[in-house]
Amino acid sequence: MNFINKVLETIEKKNSLLCVGLDTAKDKIPPHLLQESDPIFEFNKQIIDATQNYAAAFKINLAFYEAYGIEGWQALKKTFDYLPSDVIKIADAKRGDIGNTAKMYAQALFDDLGADAITVNPLMGHDSAQPFLGDPSKGVFFLCLTSNPGSQDFQHFSNGEQKLYEKIAVSVNSWNSNNNCGLVVGATHPEELEKIRSLTPQLPFLIPGIGAQGGDLQKSVQFGTDLNGSNALYNSSRAIIYASLEKDFAQTAKAKAKQTRDDLNNAKI
Amino acid sequence: MNFINKVLETIEKKNSLLCVGLDTAKDKIPPHLLQESDPIFEFNKQIIDATQNYAAAFKINLAFYEAYGIEGWQALKKTFDYLPSDVIKIADAKRGDIGNTAKMYAQALFDDLGADAITVNPLMGHDSAQPFLGDPSKGVFFLCLTSNPGSQDFQHFSNGEQKLYEKIAVSVNSWNSNNNCGLVVGATHPEELEKIRSLTPQLPFLIPGIGAQGGDLQKSVQFGTDLNGSNALYNSSRAIIYASLEKDFAQTAKAKAKQTRDDLNNAKI
Repeated sequence: MNFINKVLETIEKKNSLLCVGLDTAKDKIPPHLLQESDPIFEFNKQIIDATQNYAAAFKINLAFYEAYGIEGWQALKKTFDYLPSDVIKIADAKRGDIGNTAKMYAQALFDDLGADAITVNPLMGHDSAQPFLGDPSKGVFFLCLTSNPGSQDFQHFSNGEQKLYEKIAVSVNSWNSNNNCGLVVGATHPEELEKIRSLTPQLPFLIPGIGAQGGDLQKSVQFGTDLNGSNALYNSSRAIIYASLEKDFAQTAKAKAKQTRDDLNNAKI
Repeated sequence: MNFINKVLETIEKKNSLLCVGLDTAKDKIPPHLLQESDPIFEFNKQIIDATQNYAAAFKINLAFYEAYGIEGWQALKKTFDYLPSDVIKIADAKRGDIGNTAKMYAQALFDDLGADAITVNPLMGHDSAQPFLGDPSKGVFFLCLTSNPGSQDFQHFSNGEQKLYEKIAVSVNSWNSNNNCGLVVGATHPEELEKIRSLTPQLPFLIPGIGAQGGDLQKSVQFGTDLNGSNALYNSSRAIIYASLEKDFAQTAKAKAKQTRDDLNNAKI
């Protein structure tokens, strides 16, 4: 099954647009877990168990794991291996390099780590994208418009008729011959989200920024989903996984995930 | 010492503009090394020993190591630890993410790995750059104009007066308050190199593409260095490290590194 169909089917089966972000940092997790032999994995395991019924996807930001060196990579691999098979597993790595090197990243993330999808920075253009797109079952979410203040610096650069992020959206659309391309579009920009959705009606969106970053959830769902209220994954990391630092953190995360899943579904028109 | 002064001093002391790229892949190294317990590190060790007298810097592309999972990270860490203290150690990771996450990458690459400098993709803007720039002794080479065909897709996007890569150069120049910013500029574009050098006379350049990628070395040196023929590092990976696949590979790499060092010095006006 190609990646786009996998996204649509998973969203339907799980009745959820929610992506849970496992941005796990040792100094943020409940202190009682620090006595475990692998505190990061133990935290992730309990969060996955608690939230998986409400999530269509899990997104793992590699930075948080690389920061701990080899120990971090071990926790990362164990976490990917532990994720259930009925969710989309996203390695949020924002990689991007020339063809020769991109091939190595594709091997690292798809084959070694077992990701279903990855995030890629498109700045280096089509030949940096192609090595990630050979397998129709593996997806790539290209950075298009991000949710941070610095997105204004270059992504909004305009030739008078088109902004860079629009050019990226149109280009990625043209790279989608295997039905496995998607876009990262920040939820902090609902009007732009609407514009990008109109340019690329078929592409799945990965939408960060609905949790701690304070995007407008209602508008994000109305403008980010397709005509069937699908084809978009809304990521929340900190607001769910760090909802409590007490021993009941997993139960609290579960309640928060369920509520976010419901809020997303209720925001559909 | 701030990073830019460190680059200038290292180039002078080593009398070299050469950066040796350790893009080490298992299927490219001499077959007799595959019987070693850690073939990648063994290869790197011998290449470092053979070429370090001729190199001002070593650049290690993380993709090649991540592709082998935890085993690759171990080889990566051992390679960084093995590099001599009188060269600039560059982690070519092309990372870039929001502030919170960029901090984790900075920790991973500067603290855990021990890099002197890293490459960063600037697409996400100033707040994705800042977390890498806090320590004046640690440098960041931002992707500005790359050496691959796809660099035409977005880096050349123009508002009529300025191209995106020029906007990136000017922006990075304004981020350089700690004297630790640099630019990645492909050697396949000598005219653009001249333009970017004129926009940013103080920034060190990391220039890939003089080896296997076929850039024009003479023009690259004339246009890429500063007024003193310094402040630019020219990377060659495959043309040096894979110059021979025989048992004498290290000696052949040494001769090739010496010749490239000399060619670079002779290309100065």
